[in-house]
Amino acid sequence: MPDMKLHDYYRSSASYRVRIALALKGLRYEQSFVNLRHQEQAGEGYRRVNPAGLVPTLEDDAGSHGQSLAIVEYLEERYPEPPLLPRDAAGRARVRALSLAVACDIHPLNNLRVLRYLKDQLHVDDAARDGWYAHWIGTGLSALEATLARDPLTGRHCHGDIPGLADLCLVPQVYNAERMQCDLEPYPVIRRLVAAARALPAFQAAEPARQPDAVA
Amino acid sequence: MPDMKLHDYYRSSASYRVRIALALKGLRYEQSFVNLRHQEQAGEGYRRVNPAGLVPTLEDDAGSHGQSLAIVEYLEERYPEPPLLPRDAAGRARVRALSLAVACDIHPLNNLRVLRYLKDQLHVDDAARDGWYAHWIGTGLSALEATLARDPLTGRHCHGDIPGLADLCLVPQVYNAERMQCDLEPYPVIRRLVAAARALPAFQAAEPARQPDAVA
Repeated sequence: MPDMKLHDYYRSSASYRVRIALALKGLRYEQSFVNLRHQEQAGEGYRRVNPAGLVPTLEDDAGSHGQSLAIVEYLEERYPEPPLLPRDAAGRARVRALSLAVACDIHPLNNLRVLRYLKDQLHVDDAARDGWYAHWIGTGLSALEATLARDPLTGRHCHGDIPGLADLCLVPQVYNAERMQCDLEPYPVIRRLVAAARALPAFQAAEPARQPDAVA
Repeated sequence: MPDMKLHDYYRSSASYRVRIALALKGLRYEQSFVNLRHQEQAGEGYRRVNPAGLVPTLEDDAGSHGQSLAIVEYLEERYPEPPLLPRDAAGRARVRALSLAVACDIHPLNNLRVLRYLKDQLHVDDAARDGWYAHWIGTGLSALEATLARDPLTGRHCHGDIPGLADLCLVPQVYNAERMQCDLEPYPVIRRLVAAARALPAFQAAEPARQPDAVA
């Protein structure tokens, strides 16, 4: 196996997704930490690795790879076992759609740079900022709950009984929602799926609190 | 070829991406229009097709498929020619990362529901809302420009000389930026790539102004 390095930040949900994928596939990697609170992602050094100044980046023998979902698809292609996507095209479409429902419809609206803009540029107060956060979490999780609840393809995990791409997107998003004390009571299917994923060692190993750069 | 129906709205950039993909692959499909200005996506009827109430949805013999990038990957798997992704894993990772840089880092922040929330819930005035729009366009396109400009893999199109997934994400995003009169002068590589794509009939056929539901 070639050496891999993950440019990582413990609380980045995009990084957290990739850590879960690496753990599910049993791949070893080195971590290089980029402190988002200290804006290290915007520095010259990191911009050479990732011109967009976003974490994570995965470096390996083939180059530097950005964007968490693209990284997971890349890992899936290079290290197919165990699979993180189902074998059939319609199943793969379903799992990718569930993943993008997190990665496009929830996460981008609530990440650190957006919350900073609301505060610094639009002078939104803390209560309105928390309302914004809860609104997009609620809108996104309601849509996901409706999708997951009505579909018999939802199993122990988001798609059948094998954890995959959708689960590794969902768990970090719910972790964020918990941190912001969003009400998860309306989402029983999501809560069940997250509990099932968190019972697995790969999801546990990837948890923010277990990373070397975690701040207590 | 099975019958396909695209639940579509002419100005939705996510729908626009899928229309380009269908046209590049030469696939025929029926259109069903969901008027976002009239909030039709939130109605009972459409929610049965897409519980999240988002466009587009592609319906075919295998079911209902949501999320534009998942739909394009599905089309790629079922109708591989002509390919929208390169053959090598690293190239595929690069193209997916460029696509997600649009789909996750720019588009979600500037879509209609977000602009509505800024106005209705946060009482942001028009100037500040336009500033928000321009800020995320600028941040995202600057990152993309830096990525594309420094990489010899950028060719006539985003990845070499064949139009693909990254191009069909980039063109609708630039269309939006133009509509909002954002300054594109700082992005010469992006302007060149968009011009090259727009010279192709598949990109032209998918243009919002050419759709049956377009409002003059």
